[in-house]
Amino acid sequence: MTRPPNIPAPFDEITAFAARCADASGAVILPHFRQVGADDKTGDAVGQFDPVTIADKNAELAIRKLIEDERPEDAILGEEFPDKPGTSGAMWVIDPIDGTRGFLTGLPTWGTLIGYHDGTKPAFGMMDQPFVGDRFFGWSSGQARGAALVRGDQVTPLKTRSCSGLSDAIFACTTHEMFQTPHEVAAFDMMLAETKLLRMGTDCYSYAMLAHGLIDVVIESCLKPFDIQALIPIIEGAGGIVTDWQGGPAENSAQVLACGDATLHKDIVARLEGLAGA
Amino acid sequence: MTRPPNIPAPFDEITAFAARCADASGAVILPHFRQVGADDKTGDAVGQFDPVTIADKNAELAIRKLIEDERPEDAILGEEFPDKPGTSGAMWVIDPIDGTRGFLTGLPTWGTLIGYHDGTKPAFGMMDQPFVGDRFFGWSSGQARGAALVRGDQVTPLKTRSCSGLSDAIFACTTHEMFQTPHEVAAFDMMLAETKLLRMGTDCYSYAMLAHGLIDVVIESCLKPFDIQALIPIIEGAGGIVTDWQGGPAENSAQVLACGDATLHKDIVARLEGLAGA
Repeated sequence: MTRPPNIPAPFDEITAFAARCADASGAVILPHFRQVGADDKTGDAVGQFDPVTIADKNAELAIRKLIEDERPEDAILGEEFPDKPGTSGAMWVIDPIDGTRGFLTGLPTWGTLIGYHDGTKPAFGMMDQPFVGDRFFGWSSGQARGAALVRGDQVTPLKTRSCSGLSDAIFACTTHEMFQTPHEVAAFDMMLAETKLLRMGTDCYSYAMLAHGLIDVVIESCLKPFDIQALIPIIEGAGGIVTDWQGGPAENSAQVLACGDATLHKDIVARLEGLAGA
Repeated sequence: MTRPPNIPAPFDEITAFAARCADASGAVILPHFRQVGADDKTGDAVGQFDPVTIADKNAELAIRKLIEDERPEDAILGEEFPDKPGTSGAMWVIDPIDGTRGFLTGLPTWGTLIGYHDGTKPAFGMMDQPFVGDRFFGWSSGQARGAALVRGDQVTPLKTRSCSGLSDAIFACTTHEMFQTPHEVAAFDMMLAETKLLRMGTDCYSYAMLAHGLIDVVIESCLKPFDIQALIPIIEGAGGIVTDWQGGPAENSAQVLACGDATLHKDIVARLEGLAGA
C-alpha cells in the first residue's frame, strides 16, 4: 500500500497523485543517499561536490514533470527552481529533501515534502521518508480532516496527544542555530527551561511525530513556505494546531509554532508575546 | 544476511553471537516503538508511564540471558542492571536503547549497542537499528581491524574520510546540553564557530556515520562506558580515531572525541588543551 484508504472524496485523486510524485522523487534520491563519502574522497573537497543538491534538484524536476504533464493548470512552488504560475488557483508546494544536514550526514531523518494549497489554505500534505519507509498523509479543509501514517501494508491513523502544561511537554526543533534575533533566542531559552525535554535534529519529522502524538510542541524559525506547507494538513488533520508565533497563519511565516494541544498552544503564544514586549 | 562475511577468526564467533543478541533485543524493543502516545493518552501523565524504560530493561534482560546461558564466563556491564562479574577477563558492554529521546519522540535514530571488551580494550562492537535495518559491525585488535554496515543482503565496508582542516569538517553531537562545565561550553562554542556544519540529535548514529565517512568529528560529554564502548571498534575498524578530550583512552571517559582523520584529531586535542588553559 502506498496511500491510506478511505480518503474523503475531494482529496482522493490528489492523494493518489501525490503518492506517485513521492515514488518518483524517492527513486531519484535514494541512489545518492549515503554516497557522499564515496563521491568525495579527496579530503579537501568537502562542499565542492554537493550530492544533496544534485539529488534535491533532480527529484524536484521529476515531481515538476509529473505536475506539468498531468496537472498543467496548477502552480508550483519549489526550493530549487523558479515558481511556475497556474490557472486553477491551486498550487503544489514541494521540497524533495527537507533536512539537508541529515541527508549529508547519512541520518534517515530527512523527508520529501509535497503539499497542495487549494487557493485558500494548505489543504493536503505528505511527508515521505523513502529510506525508512514512513509515509505521512494529512488533509484539512472544512470538515474533511484526517491524517495517517502508511508503512507498507500498515495504516496508522494519526492523532495528537493532549498535553496542556508546558512542564509536561516534549519540545522539538532542528537546531538552536535557527533562533537568531534576541526575541528568538529568548524564546528558545524559555522553551528549554520550561519544557520537560528537548529533542533536536528533527527537521520535518518533528511535525510528523507531533501529529503522531509523540511530540507536544515544535517551535522553529527561518522556515520557508516549502518547509512547512505540506506539514500543515498533517498536523491539523491529526487534531493539532500550527500557526506563526503570533497565532496567525503559518503557511508563509518563517516563525512556526505547532502544538498537539490547543491549550498548550494558547499558553505558548501568550508567553512569546510576553517575551516580545520585554 | 545478519552479519558481514569474512570476519577475521578471533571475531567470527563473537560476531555471530552479537548478531543473535541484537536479534533478540530488537524483537523486544520494536513492539514498544512509537507506542508511547498510544499508551499515554491521559495528558497529564507524560513521564508517569515510561515505555522506553520498559523496552530498554526487557531488551537488556534478553541479551543478558543469552550471555549468561552461552558465555557464563564473561562479565556484563549494562545500563539498567547491576554489573555481572566474570572469570574469562572479557566483558560485554550493552545498551539496548542508546538515544532515549529519539525513541521517545518516534525518530529512528536510536540504536542498540553491543560491545565486547577483551580484557585489554573494546575489541568488537555493534550498533543495530532494527526499525531502519542498519547494522554496523567493527572489530579492532592488533592487526585485525575492519568495519562494515549490513543492510539485508547488502554489505558495505566502512572507511572514514580524510578531512584535515577544521573549517571543512562536519561536526555532530547529540545536544548542546551535554556541554556543562565552562571548558565544555567553550569547546562547543569553538567547534560551532570553526567547523563547516553542525548536525545535532545524532546519538550513536553520529559515530556510525563517522565510520561511514559522512561525518568528520564528534565531540560529546556526559557519556557512560556503555554509550561508547561498542562504538570504539566500529570507528577504529573504519580507520578513525576515538579518544577522550586529552587524547587518552575513550572507553571509560565521559568526554569523547572521535575523528575520521588523525590530523584533524591532533589539531582538536591541541585546541581543547588551549581552551582548558585559558
